Amino acid sequence: MNKILKFGSEFKEIEVGKIVVLGENAALRLDSGADISSFPLAYQTYGALNTEKSNAVLICHGLTADQYVVGQHPVTGKPGWWENMVGPGKPIDTAKYFVICPNVLGGCMGSFGPKETNLKTGQPYNLHFPVITIADMVRAQKLLVDYLGIPRLFSIIGASMGGMQALKWADLYPEMVVSAIPIAAAGRHTAQNIAFHEIGRQAIMADPDWCEGNYLDEKKYPAKGLAVARMTAHVTYLSEAKLARKFGRKLQGRENFTYGFEADFEIESYLRHQGASFVDRFDPNSYLYITRAMDYFDLAADNGGVLANSFARTKAAFCVICFTSDWLFPPSESKLLVHALNATAASVSYVEIATDKGHDAFLLDEPDFARTIAGFLKGVARKVKIS
Amino acid sequence: MNKILKFGSEFKEIEVGKIVVLGENAALRLDSGADISSFPLAYQTYGALNTEKSNAVLICHGLTADQYVVGQHPVTGKPGWWENMVGPGKPIDTAKYFVICPNVLGGCMGSFGPKETNLKTGQPYNLHFPVITIADMVRAQKLLVDYLGIPRLFSIIGASMGGMQALKWADLYPEMVVSAIPIAAAGRHTAQNIAFHEIGRQAIMADPDWCEGNYLDEKKYPAKGLAVARMTAHVTYLSEAKLARKFGRKLQGRENFTYGFEADFEIESYLRHQGASFVDRFDPNSYLYITRAMDYFDLAADNGGVLANSFARTKAAFCVICFTSDWLFPPSESKLLVHALNATAASVSYVEIATDKGHDAFLLDEPDFARTIAGFLKGVARKVKIS
Repeated sequence: MNKILKFGSEFKEIEVGKIVVLGENAALRLDSGADISSFPLAYQTYGALNTEKSNAVLICHGLTADQYVVGQHPVTGKPGWWENMVGPGKPIDTAKYFVICPNVLGGCMGSFGPKETNLKTGQPYNLHFPVITIADMVRAQKLLVDYLGIPRLFSIIGASMGGMQALKWADLYPEMVVSAIPIAAAGRHTAQNIAFHEIGRQAIMADPDWCEGNYLDEKKYPAKGLAVARMTAHVTYLSEAKLARKFGRKLQGRENFTYGFEADFEIESYLRHQGASFVDRFDPNSYLYITRAMDYFDLAADNGGVLANSFARTKAAFCVICFTSDWLFPPSESKLLVHALNATAASVSYVEIATDKGHDAFLLDEPDFARTIAGFLKGVARKVKIS
Repeated sequence: MNKILKFGSEFKEIEVGKIVVLGENAALRLDSGADISSFPLAYQTYGALNTEKSNAVLICHGLTADQYVVGQHPVTGKPGWWENMVGPGKPIDTAKYFVICPNVLGGCMGSFGPKETNLKTGQPYNLHFPVITIADMVRAQKLLVDYLGIPRLFSIIGASMGGMQALKWADLYPEMVVSAIPIAAAGRHTAQNIAFHEIGRQAIMADPDWCEGNYLDEKKYPAKGLAVARMTAHVTYLSEAKLARKFGRKLQGRENFTYGFEADFEIESYLRHQGASFVDRFDPNSYLYITRAMDYFDLAADNGGVLANSFARTKAAFCVICFTSDWLFPPSESKLLVHALNATAASVSYVEIATDKGHDAFLLDEPDFARTIAGFLKGVARKVKIS
């Protein structure tokens, strides 16, 4: 389905994939207390659902990704964000599993988000869009899974914010989750994480072209603020060691300093590029909403202050994966999850992948990581007898 | 001496302390190749120079500090930035030592910087100010020390960028340095450090009120951009553990989320305050110049690619101090300094202070840190027979 969406300075007609309208008969009550109904959720599927409907894998995407797990992205023209992990014969094998990936509630690739038009006013929602939570994202996904007629999910897999969603699924709908793989995730957002998000939001809101959130109405675009937000986030996705190895103090196409404020260093040039290219594919208000959802995430607080309570009803097999050099979602946070799962005698594997690639390692070629996911899924498939 | 300086939205007449005009007879050639002459350097002194002129301690300040080491700050009205370390009976004992602290070249508290008026044009320099380096700051300090008639410095003490200056002193003027205490410093700025600086600069330059650097002429002020820059830097000064301990996920004066973009969390409120208060005391262009000086710093590159070469001529006693939880200038960087000093058979102590306070620990009450400095200075004083 095509939608007219604005990214950067351009309006583009974009194929956002499949779209379902959810909550037509019953509104979805959000954590904020707001009710939403008849709202769109865009999603992609890969592979085929088996007759038993027992082979569905839900992939939950991270902060700035979307439903284009594999295949050419309609905005950037680039490959999907998880090509190395998903496909026929890949660790998440689409010859065997039916993979579903919805764009999150609050997102900007066709799902209900702040740039969608409010049919009552004919204007974009902008900041009138309700603040959403990770639980709200999961509730919307549940409606999608129901719509697809799938009673239980063979696995829910997600990294970073996607991992938060996988954890929240196990909390909200324990009977529907056969297995879950939270990767580089955590049971709550830490003060440092909130701090970096707040910097990003302040950078966007500092841009006068943000227009107090009404840039679509004003035909402006806070590109500079969004770029600074992205640059800030991007540094947190990489380890110091990776930055040192990849960039160090190398100069960008020059022998000497310019003694000015051009991008003398490769790392500066790289960051500027990351900021600039992000602006062309993401919505600034959506960035505010989704970072806020992550900030609010606190599984323990949702469950009487005890993290283990959130897993009390689970029957799922968990594989908790993290990366040694990830300082945004460090192994210590994953270990808290494992301790809580152990406290409820849940089935849990814990795998710490040794890498210097930082948080973004889940997007990169990490053979041990790929083998871990492939092996875990095969094990669960054998146990629950998926052909 | 009073100077009219602009901070935030206000012009204020400010007592910037003592000011000397340097380079009147011979211009100072900067690393960029530019020559500067008859330029002001503002400084404060504490204590008295002894008759032998052997008790002078040079304190080199960090990125956003200034000459107001102790005593009420003329802009903020707050105490000096190192009250706990400097004064009669304090570790840097002003009853015993003559402490000098100059505002760095490129700074904004009276020393020659981008907001100073170009006497040829009658306008502020803005981006016509030459890019300066850590070595240039040191060269200007050397002129000040000469002006004060001091042949050798009993100690040069500095943290963070101040530590870079202390190291560069030992490289450029080895015969003048009796001892040096580089604290939470490094022999070069890493890719991650440059990345965070570049984000800060981009935040400032993204603000339309920066006016391509000409905000003073345009009577504007890029307050929002500067605040975002400060927030970004501030997070890097604190450890994750300190943030978790001090703020965690505590809400700011409320019981529940507002489901909006107010500062729900204490960490958000704290960061916003850090940004806002910085704007009232610092010059945006000065921030660009001083961060650039740090980015360019690479002692090894200055010395044929071998860090140890920079210490080849030193006779100084070094005390290299770092903090376990400092991830901006981590102990690994201090150890590189110690290895290089050892490789030249220099006199060096290495002290790693166990603390969760991160980079900013040097500003805070850390008894082991204070004892280390007091003890080292006493030891050197005994050795060189300072009364």
